[in-house]
Amino acid sequence: MSIKIDFQTSPSQYKHWRVEYDGEIANLFMDVDEDGGLFEGYKLKLNSYDLGVDIELADVVQRMRFEHPEVKVIVMQSAKDRVFCAGANIRMLGGASHAHKVNFCKFTNETRNTFEAAEVDSGQKYICAVQGACAGGGYELALACNYIMLTNDSNSSVSLPEVPLLAVLPGTGGLTRVTDKRKVRRDLADVFCSTEEGVKGQRAVDWRLVDEVVANSKFNETVQERAQEFAGASTRPTGLTGIELTPLNRVIDPDSVTYSLVEVSIDRDAGQVTITLNGPDAPAAASMDEVVALGADAYLLRLARELDDAILHLRLNERDCGIILFRTQGDAELLLAHEALLLDNADHWLANEILKYWGRVLKRVDMTSRSLVALVEHGSCYAGVLAELLWAVDRSYMMLDEFDGDNRPVAAITLSQSNFGRYKMGNDLTRLETRFLGEPAAVETLKGRIGEALEAEEADLLGLVTYAFDDIDWEDEIRVFLEERASFSPDAMTGMEANLRFAGPETMETRIFGRLTAWQNWIFQRPNAVGPEGALQRYGTGVRGKYDTERV
Amino acid sequence: MSIKIDFQTSPSQYKHWRVEYDGEIANLFMDVDEDGGLFEGYKLKLNSYDLGVDIELADVVQRMRFEHPEVKVIVMQSAKDRVFCAGANIRMLGGASHAHKVNFCKFTNETRNTFEAAEVDSGQKYICAVQGACAGGGYELALACNYIMLTNDSNSSVSLPEVPLLAVLPGTGGLTRVTDKRKVRRDLADVFCSTEEGVKGQRAVDWRLVDEVVANSKFNETVQERAQEFAGASTRPTGLTGIELTPLNRVIDPDSVTYSLVEVSIDRDAGQVTITLNGPDAPAAASMDEVVALGADAYLLRLARELDDAILHLRLNERDCGIILFRTQGDAELLLAHEALLLDNADHWLANEILKYWGRVLKRVDMTSRSLVALVEHGSCYAGVLAELLWAVDRSYMMLDEFDGDNRPVAAITLSQSNFGRYKMGNDLTRLETRFLGEPAAVETLKGRIGEALEAEEADLLGLVTYAFDDIDWEDEIRVFLEERASFSPDAMTGMEANLRFAGPETMETRIFGRLTAWQNWIFQRPNAVGPEGALQRYGTGVRGKYDTERV
Repeated sequence: MSIKIDFQTSPSQYKHWRVEYDGEIANLFMDVDEDGGLFEGYKLKLNSYDLGVDIELADVVQRMRFEHPEVKVIVMQSAKDRVFCAGANIRMLGGASHAHKVNFCKFTNETRNTFEAAEVDSGQKYICAVQGACAGGGYELALACNYIMLTNDSNSSVSLPEVPLLAVLPGTGGLTRVTDKRKVRRDLADVFCSTEEGVKGQRAVDWRLVDEVVANSKFNETVQERAQEFAGASTRPTGLTGIELTPLNRVIDPDSVTYSLVEVSIDRDAGQVTITLNGPDAPAAASMDEVVALGADAYLLRLARELDDAILHLRLNERDCGIILFRTQGDAELLLAHEALLLDNADHWLANEILKYWGRVLKRVDMTSRSLVALVEHGSCYAGVLAELLWAVDRSYMMLDEFDGDNRPVAAITLSQSNFGRYKMGNDLTRLETRFLGEPAAVETLKGRIGEALEAEEADLLGLVTYAFDDIDWEDEIRVFLEERASFSPDAMTGMEANLRFAGPETMETRIFGRLTAWQNWIFQRPNAVGPEGALQRYGTGVRGKYDTERV
Repeated sequence: MSIKIDFQTSPSQYKHWRVEYDGEIANLFMDVDEDGGLFEGYKLKLNSYDLGVDIELADVVQRMRFEHPEVKVIVMQSAKDRVFCAGANIRMLGGASHAHKVNFCKFTNETRNTFEAAEVDSGQKYICAVQGACAGGGYELALACNYIMLTNDSNSSVSLPEVPLLAVLPGTGGLTRVTDKRKVRRDLADVFCSTEEGVKGQRAVDWRLVDEVVANSKFNETVQERAQEFAGASTRPTGLTGIELTPLNRVIDPDSVTYSLVEVSIDRDAGQVTITLNGPDAPAAASMDEVVALGADAYLLRLARELDDAILHLRLNERDCGIILFRTQGDAELLLAHEALLLDNADHWLANEILKYWGRVLKRVDMTSRSLVALVEHGSCYAGVLAELLWAVDRSYMMLDEFDGDNRPVAAITLSQSNFGRYKMGNDLTRLETRFLGEPAAVETLKGRIGEALEAEEADLLGLVTYAFDDIDWEDEIRVFLEERASFSPDAMTGMEANLRFAGPETMETRIFGRLTAWQNWIFQRPNAVGPEGALQRYGTGVRGKYDTERV
């Protein structure tokens, strides 16, 4: 069975990107195939992109870290003449449903965050080498790079023309990165974001929009020089050999998706999905050399890739299922042994990559617009990294005492060192810190319980789960809750969850998903943008959008 | 001429609130007149409120600080039996336009922030004494108080039933204060915010939803005890006598509003409004005693009140004017002398109140959803507190050199000490710190220029204005800009401005106006809430909202 939108791809399937590896430097070329759009009805002209283009980019970024650890600098550039990238395809946006627009922006934002973080996480630095027009989503690609170089010719500029041209916001972090990363003065940012033609040359440096402007005749040469310099300054180890991210073992059926370790079961009538994560199917490796040899088959990497794919699949392809139930089953001690090897070797490149990838997958869960519930059943293995799910979800239910006829090991939760700093949320706190914002001492208490199998009564007392129910109440309580939850407005759930999940400080990352995205979603509902006379619908007709002038 | 919504009121006009003054303690009773709604079509049952109720509350809070400086503790309570407050009136919300809903929430949020800050700003502490149902906006009133007491009976609870009942968010800071002020554990917050009936008794304390639960028989007594305790612990001076906030001198004509110091001129065809702020019409007082004697006539207090009223009037009553131009005219040195007296006596209660009020008025400007522009013309007086407007606006234009036939003093900007910490934005930075986030040294440089009349060339060089134009370019440049701005989508402007204005850290306050409000505005556009079968339309019909189950 095929699915509508597949997040799995590989270099041999790419239509839009090309990478030339040159030792420590990778040259990444954007060369979008006009006719390679994910849907009918638009052509991807001028290196404009749709979700399909971004799925490939996410794959490039992911493989760069696992398959090409020798790379220290990635130079993102255009393979087209006179245009770097025209941003998200407007006809695609004009024709897309609201839900697709929102999910498209969310995924592209996650991809931007991923390559932006690669320098800090892995010492892989992204240079954006801009020749030609770099507009809207194109400039947002650049903004998420670590260093932006602009050629100095009359044809090359950076711009965010969404507001004047399309009556929407630059929705992939643009406004936030302009103010918070580039720290452009707010009135200049106002001018920049309301000027269709953008900013060129030295002014782009003066306004902090790019890091360096270079004469056209010396551009390519200077870009490669800069790449060499950055590679030379990198503290990343040299001469590493990667592992191959082999195709996922995945079977898609009408009501389920089955991976090697993850099972997704879909109940569309109830509007809910169950994701079961299975514990290790093999003993922990004895060394990182063994993990390298296992490559993509290594348990924790495989589990992360499968869970990541499942979440993305559900977000885009099963949008009427508003509830995701997480289950785990397996040997907690064994799971902890797998994790411990990585934690003990966290400075090994592959251990680092697997742990950092788990950080991203867990953030993907945090950002998933579904009511998330964890069921801590007998036989489950919420330990270490998987225990994070308990505090990523909106609520958790735990089995208390033995259940009649159930001879699985009694439900328990086991903390590891990793729960105290390894997998931070977008707000730069751990999930436990966020959970216990009002009682920081609770986190300290929990540190003292690392390694203990905490059964329901204790887990409840320690605040690790929402509810613990015994055999008599378990089924009814969960059934009643799920029925009630499914009866609520999905939009109110989305808004509520987006507010309750991210207590405490905001970071640039959370601001992009919170403030910026929420305003963009609002605009994506407003007639001035999406109505029949709105700017998105009229784009390309030669007639400007007609606007209701009322301010709200 | 009358106006649609008037933000001016006074105790003799109150329909919904009553205050009993008892020395250092004020008992504030909410007793909403069912038939006293601002519009037709709904009854304000069960202490539910509309904008008119909140305008009175804002007046109470403001007068408490200026007219009743002897008050140290305010006890907010209900004068109705069995109900504290049922929140915003749902029929009012169901019948209101999107723009009214958004502006209603913004104003109520500003009022909540004002009484919440009164403890830190002025040592006036708000206790919320809850007897009876305290639901939705009712609990949001409580959340913004400094201390919440709940009586322990079967009829009294706190709740945020918006999500399950109405398919909207608690829109007046509720979700944010639950997570960030009360620091309720996120899964308990999830349970609380999706439970119509709310939480009672000891559990409300255990979940951090209230500060104290008291047996019903001892409730009133304990509340007054607590009020006495807090009053006793207050560091606020004792026995102060207030000033009277006399009615504004205001004339409303079809295309203008004229105050004693502020002129508002409305050009509806161009979609723009000009607000002219005039410099002092009297010499600075020699002492705070003189200022107290002047009372509401004191220049800086009068100017703040007039500007505040003008902004609120424009927000609600002139929604098709998307651009506000600020002008000042007057003697900058004299203005600085007025400000200096307050700054030099900042520990005097009235000086403190006037300065803090300016802080709130400037924040009101920051939060105003209009394109804000400052014109720094010859003869202007952007000095000290008024210079803040230059960095509150989206752009500023300054006259450069002499203009033909214009014999007013050449345009200059004068900084005072107050620009470096006195009037902080919601993000807890000064406007200059926010402006120069990328170049903190620029702020230090500016400190060295306090008191100098900085003319255009220098002001431009120092980054204080966006553009400086001479006589040849001035008119054309501004005309072209204003025409272009007026042609943009108002919604895109709203979203862009909401992102660009608040660079840097987020606080609870900015999160309420950013993340929470943006999501609420989105929901206020979604059919699941506001469509013909949505929850807001169906409320009270006995039929639940019918929801499209698609998640976005």
